[in-house]
Amino acid sequence: MTTGPITGSTKVYRELTHDGTAMQVPFRRVNLTNGEHLDLYDTSGPYTDDDAVIDLAAGLRPRPNVIRDHGTQLQRARAGEITAEMAYIAEREGVSPELVRDEVARGRAVIPANHNHPEIEPMIIGKAFGVKVNANIGNSAVTSSIAEEVDKMVWATRWGADTIMDLSTGKDIHLTREWILRNSPVPVGTVPIYQALEKVNGDPTKLTWEMYRDTVIEQCEQGVDYMTVHAGVLLRYIPLTVKRVTGIVSRGGSIMAAWCLAHHTESFLYTHFEELCEILARYDVTFSLGDGLRPGSIADANDEAQFAELRTLGELTKIAKSRGVQVMIEGPGHVPMHKIVENVRLEEEWCEEAPFYTLGPLATDIAPAYDHITSAIGAAIIAQAGTAMLCYVTPKEHLGLPDRKDVKDGVIAYKIAAHSGDLAKGHPRAQQRDDALSKARFEFRWHDQFALSLDPDTAREFHDETLPAEPAKSAHFCSMCGPKFCSMRITQDIRDAYPDGVPDDIAEGMAAKSQEFADHGNRVYLPLTT
Amino acid sequence: MTTGPITGSTKVYRELTHDGTAMQVPFRRVNLTNGEHLDLYDTSGPYTDDDAVIDLAAGLRPRPNVIRDHGTQLQRARAGEITAEMAYIAEREGVSPELVRDEVARGRAVIPANHNHPEIEPMIIGKAFGVKVNANIGNSAVTSSIAEEVDKMVWATRWGADTIMDLSTGKDIHLTREWILRNSPVPVGTVPIYQALEKVNGDPTKLTWEMYRDTVIEQCEQGVDYMTVHAGVLLRYIPLTVKRVTGIVSRGGSIMAAWCLAHHTESFLYTHFEELCEILARYDVTFSLGDGLRPGSIADANDEAQFAELRTLGELTKIAKSRGVQVMIEGPGHVPMHKIVENVRLEEEWCEEAPFYTLGPLATDIAPAYDHITSAIGAAIIAQAGTAMLCYVTPKEHLGLPDRKDVKDGVIAYKIAAHSGDLAKGHPRAQQRDDALSKARFEFRWHDQFALSLDPDTAREFHDETLPAEPAKSAHFCSMCGPKFCSMRITQDIRDAYPDGVPDDIAEGMAAKSQEFADHGNRVYLPLTT
Repeated sequence: MTTGPITGSTKVYRELTHDGTAMQVPFRRVNLTNGEHLDLYDTSGPYTDDDAVIDLAAGLRPRPNVIRDHGTQLQRARAGEITAEMAYIAEREGVSPELVRDEVARGRAVIPANHNHPEIEPMIIGKAFGVKVNANIGNSAVTSSIAEEVDKMVWATRWGADTIMDLSTGKDIHLTREWILRNSPVPVGTVPIYQALEKVNGDPTKLTWEMYRDTVIEQCEQGVDYMTVHAGVLLRYIPLTVKRVTGIVSRGGSIMAAWCLAHHTESFLYTHFEELCEILARYDVTFSLGDGLRPGSIADANDEAQFAELRTLGELTKIAKSRGVQVMIEGPGHVPMHKIVENVRLEEEWCEEAPFYTLGPLATDIAPAYDHITSAIGAAIIAQAGTAMLCYVTPKEHLGLPDRKDVKDGVIAYKIAAHSGDLAKGHPRAQQRDDALSKARFEFRWHDQFALSLDPDTAREFHDETLPAEPAKSAHFCSMCGPKFCSMRITQDIRDAYPDGVPDDIAEGMAAKSQEFADHGNRVYLPLTT
Repeated sequence: MTTGPITGSTKVYRELTHDGTAMQVPFRRVNLTNGEHLDLYDTSGPYTDDDAVIDLAAGLRPRPNVIRDHGTQLQRARAGEITAEMAYIAEREGVSPELVRDEVARGRAVIPANHNHPEIEPMIIGKAFGVKVNANIGNSAVTSSIAEEVDKMVWATRWGADTIMDLSTGKDIHLTREWILRNSPVPVGTVPIYQALEKVNGDPTKLTWEMYRDTVIEQCEQGVDYMTVHAGVLLRYIPLTVKRVTGIVSRGGSIMAAWCLAHHTESFLYTHFEELCEILARYDVTFSLGDGLRPGSIADANDEAQFAELRTLGELTKIAKSRGVQVMIEGPGHVPMHKIVENVRLEEEWCEEAPFYTLGPLATDIAPAYDHITSAIGAAIIAQAGTAMLCYVTPKEHLGLPDRKDVKDGVIAYKIAAHSGDLAKGHPRAQQRDDALSKARFEFRWHDQFALSLDPDTAREFHDETLPAEPAKSAHFCSMCGPKFCSMRITQDIRDAYPDGVPDDIAEGMAAKSQEFADHGNRVYLPLTT
């Protein structure tokens, strides 16, 4: 397991006191060689502390004084209360606590924080805040172990995953989840129907409401922060999927479809939805209303089945909120670029602007092995349009389960998409990082350029491939143009030649200026020895 | 050097006769296991022929009967002529020859085909056709050899590069280009100022119009198909760049800025532009009017310097076209998502819809080592908005020169962006491939899924990591969900249970249907032995 600070950064905590309780809000501090620093939002938990000592068997230290008996964040926000979690989040996001409270009260943001999961560092999912990224992990009957999954969780949060979903479907589901929960600094989501299915040996027709309910309670008790519930897959929508190119591709969706058809009864998730609300409200577990009929191909995007379900999710949103339960809505899937924004528009209209949480979408189907890229395109566009959290897709999507490298590739691709969305939405803090990195680039501060990047290790490694020597890390050229000529160097020479700025009337015939530039030696390249 | 067909495909040629000359139009035929096939646009030249025998020293076989004395494609299109190249392109793109002629005549499309480069398979760049991808190669003073660059050219076109730019700046520029030109099946672009700069030992202030002109003629004679000319960097625009975060980042742009300042004279590219037009018209070399003042950071996007130059490129476009020279316009660079479309709008307005040819743009600056992804996001969006050709960016951008792996990663990322753009624009052929792949995926035809993908080898390799045995390539499950449960399999079971389609009134209480599904064994999983 990788611990310790990210290359070029140190972990800092800002002190915050709320109602007499001292809290520590984490940031990744990038220390620049020019003496400046930049503090970045950090998701990695104590694993990146300078003196990280991790005991997986003991789990992370819980936050002190977690309040369990005053209802959900939604209920408390509506009552006008700024909770400790809201104060913490405001500091983390750089916004006012009142904005946090207001967005939660309106149901436009959620704070997934099960009372039984005090190990997390509180975070918020909503369009008024930074766009978040979820990383799916979990074993299947074919591959991987508990240790591997815990490692993936630590690894994913190191690179910026804001939440983790444990989608295990194989053996040891409960135990795998326990290890992840006790050691995760970020909220953990699950799809309880997967575990329920294991309990009936994989036969969906054998599922019952009672055993599903018991599974949900088991997971609530354990501390799961949000749960995907495919309660919008109604019996009457199933015929709409039969003529699709790829039918039903959501696991939860097809489990429920099979159950509905076998019993010829409406989904128990739908008919027992209010009872489910009561359970989730008790722990403040957030609904992630699943899109069981999401399109699995470009051909099926934005079709009747998909939007019929979305309308039902809108109904369920109202019910959940009336019961004080926080809600977010899951979205597609596979959608060509020109059909993406429509998804956000309808979700906001039908689901009262509940936070949208989308898988990609993939903008094309033709690149298996590169679906972190096909989907980062769709994810960036849907983030710009208002999606609050993006579920990552790794290069292994459609081909196998992600390993450690895939997890990192997926997280980085999605941090790019999320950050691009933040920039396009004008998020106040987003451009600071771009500007700091660009300035470092222009000033040939190579170490700073690496440190400010999403993946300092790989950036440095690439630079090392051609120019490994330490002097090259401050050299005013790189291997792309070579030492004899560098375009950025020329601009710096121009600045040196005109310390007071190039005059606006330069084109009006002052030949003296030419001499001035020449007097500075027409410096346009550096000697090879630099 | 890699030759032979792409895995799962064979090379086919469609016969076409134009004015008595027989032509062979290439396609990559994907042969599916269900007996069907799909023919795809192919850029790879004879290197992917079944019986490819390549002799680099001899070069590729020239097309027969290339016409040299009848002016440019633009002039001939205006005269109402459908040239052999236009007929060839129409077959390749699946459109009418008249559409090709009309778009060229209007200047909305270009056919880069130097009379002295008969080795190429003609292609078109314009918004009415498939979005194209350019791959930059070329050595620098620090790295690489001629053999490596020729190998990169073959490698890039194998994965789908529609044109190649040779951006060599080191030694042996002429010879490197000669090897590339004689062996390239796609048009080759250059930036002549780079070679001119080598001739004055890297000191831009020593450049003269005469030696630049001679360099252009040298390259025209050799067969370069399009040339980047930074003729829009005017003396009066230079002050606009000084306050930028990253100044001037284009090599050509900064060379000319340094020259203008040193001599305090307007750029010789601008003052001698009409003479340049006469030279290019003689060979039918296409202008790629370079954006020497493109933004090099998010902070500098869409600024005054950038758009001042674009207006000048608009003026030059009119001059070039009036001289019968084909023109495309280069675009940024680094642009956040919300500022991308404006670039296309202004380019079309000011440059008479000349084909736009953009570098990315990168949607954020914070991910060096992943700029193929940051820029694929921007590239897809700008392609949807009307860009005709995308210049790839590799993972090494800003850090070093691309090696073979980087070239492939860059090309694949850009094929994804280009294809996503085609889909969003409703290109008639684009969705066929997505649908074929999705259908193969849904029917568990794994080999077909690989063969239809942009990179069959890597897709198969990823699948092999967990399920390497041949039977897994037709198994109705994968390692993601394991054999006990597969969502797509369930939909197929539903189809099997209702061979005439699931009745629309299924929700109205026909309990018999439930029995019907049960009679089919409630099949929802496959035995582990499958």
